[in-house]
Amino acid sequence: MHTYEELLEKFSFSMEKESFSGEPVELYEPITYMMELGGKRLRPVLLLMTCDAFGGNVDAAIPAAHAVEMFHNFTLVHDDIMDGATIRRGKDTIWNIWGEDTAILVGDIMFALAMEYLLQINHPNSNEMLELFLKVAREVCEGQQLDMNYEEADDTTIPDYLGMIRLKTAALLATSLKLGAILANAKKEDIKNIYEFGINIGLAFQLKDDLLDVFGSVDKFGKMPGGDILSDKKTFLLLKALTIAEEADKKIIEEYIGEGEEDPEQKIMDITAIYSTLNLDKITATEMERHFERAEYYLELVSLPDEKKAELLSLAKKMMYRDQ
Amino acid sequence: MHTYEELLEKFSFSMEKESFSGEPVELYEPITYMMELGGKRLRPVLLLMTCDAFGGNVDAAIPAAHAVEMFHNFTLVHDDIMDGATIRRGKDTIWNIWGEDTAILVGDIMFALAMEYLLQINHPNSNEMLELFLKVAREVCEGQQLDMNYEEADDTTIPDYLGMIRLKTAALLATSLKLGAILANAKKEDIKNIYEFGINIGLAFQLKDDLLDVFGSVDKFGKMPGGDILSDKKTFLLLKALTIAEEADKKIIEEYIGEGEEDPEQKIMDITAIYSTLNLDKITATEMERHFERAEYYLELVSLPDEKKAELLSLAKKMMYRDQ
Repeated sequence: MHTYEELLEKFSFSMEKESFSGEPVELYEPITYMMELGGKRLRPVLLLMTCDAFGGNVDAAIPAAHAVEMFHNFTLVHDDIMDGATIRRGKDTIWNIWGEDTAILVGDIMFALAMEYLLQINHPNSNEMLELFLKVAREVCEGQQLDMNYEEADDTTIPDYLGMIRLKTAALLATSLKLGAILANAKKEDIKNIYEFGINIGLAFQLKDDLLDVFGSVDKFGKMPGGDILSDKKTFLLLKALTIAEEADKKIIEEYIGEGEEDPEQKIMDITAIYSTLNLDKITATEMERHFERAEYYLELVSLPDEKKAELLSLAKKMMYRDQ
Repeated sequence: MHTYEELLEKFSFSMEKESFSGEPVELYEPITYMMELGGKRLRPVLLLMTCDAFGGNVDAAIPAAHAVEMFHNFTLVHDDIMDGATIRRGKDTIWNIWGEDTAILVGDIMFALAMEYLLQINHPNSNEMLELFLKVAREVCEGQQLDMNYEEADDTTIPDYLGMIRLKTAALLATSLKLGAILANAKKEDIKNIYEFGINIGLAFQLKDDLLDVFGSVDKFGKMPGGDILSDKKTFLLLKALTIAEEADKKIIEEYIGEGEEDPEQKIMDITAIYSTLNLDKITATEMERHFERAEYYLELVSLPDEKKAELLSLAKKMMYRDQ
């Protein structure tokens, strides 16, 4: 079985050979820019690794890996417009350079390109894979809309939040694993369990993302910390804080929510301080652990040799214990 | 062979049974709103009529008809954001009601839904149809980007313009015909010629659209006339005017281009007056005729009985000689 590093290299090598040139250049240059920004290439590697674990042909799975990476980047391009995010992976976002209108079209084309990759797959179940892909496309959009809804709402609960990140983040990670398993002709039961493994890893992954947004460093995380705080995103940290904080701290948080950003640095500092007092880093880590254990449970059910499960679990751990 | 009216009724009946309910409602309500706004349903009817003409099963082609209609509406939702258009078919546009962020996601979901329709098709060439669909998706985006580029450029030519509307408008109309022909297992040569027929009908159709934007009435056209003038769209009328106008009129036009809209009504009035003096309605009609004749030429090459060609040509005429 290939290691994570080998598969990442294989995929990166294939990425380098891809060219997104086309006319008009105003549309295709930003695609190249976005795809060269880097990123962890988690979804394609998860797909390839799962395909490999189930004995599939990794080379034949490469177009599907490109599809999930391209699709993920499409969602980032559109999300950055909606979130007004100016920096991504340490660089200016697409809309910030080329404007919102072009960024909308760039995303649309990337969605089409993602599907084109998937059509390259020659597999008896390719129709099922296309259906899965469109299903997860919808789920990601639904999750993003819920995320925006919750920014405005004042009655969002932690289960609401978990349901939202399941759609927005976990579904695509889990679908990447599932596609890899289908490509390798894995058994139905295994495909189902590997998907649930992916969902729970995805939830833990997003919780880590929320944590890094508050406690991460800009050098490593590639964007300014506190973005979620400024946009009043109802993250696990915020929702938990509102549940467990004393009245005084709760009032401070509530007064900041919905407030214009008169002094954004102060807002970030004050709320981060409350989070620290409340030990939210540890509480969030415990919540991550809970989902990680569920992931382990589902992986256990999969009929794969132990060393292959260990490889998948090791990647899952990398995803959780990252600092970027 | 079914008439245009019969096919429109068949498709409309099928549309009524479609439901776009889903969660969160913020995403799915706008889809229902958009799809119920009406419109001419040209693309689906063209698809069904071509399928019918080549002896295909019209009922089996219905999902493909839904796909092109849904896709077309997706592009309208995103275009309206970019164009800042507040009114479409006499009603408020999606972004104007639900905001730009939701409108971006609504469009994304509609793109996915369009593809889902296409996946319902059970046909030996369904992969080819998916590829065609993604190709035209890219073309429409490329056309829209060129359209935006030309708004800023001062050296756009009439051939540039025709190349742009070929991508933005004609390609989807032509692809609708092509999909209908493929579904009916038409011969390769016929598929090629019916596509070229569609391209030329599409060019004439867009020229008519440009004409209506200046000389149409708001009651019938469903949007305020002069929108293209206000946004400095390099339409056939504007480009032709810049070519044939006397220096004085040319100067008036050029001074208006790029100007903020201090007095939008005056701008529309002045430029429309120049267009009238230059007989641009007649000149544009002649240009439309030119493309219509090319369309007739390609239709002539298709191996279909005369009465079936007549039916397709009659619909093409309806598209050209409309007042809305």
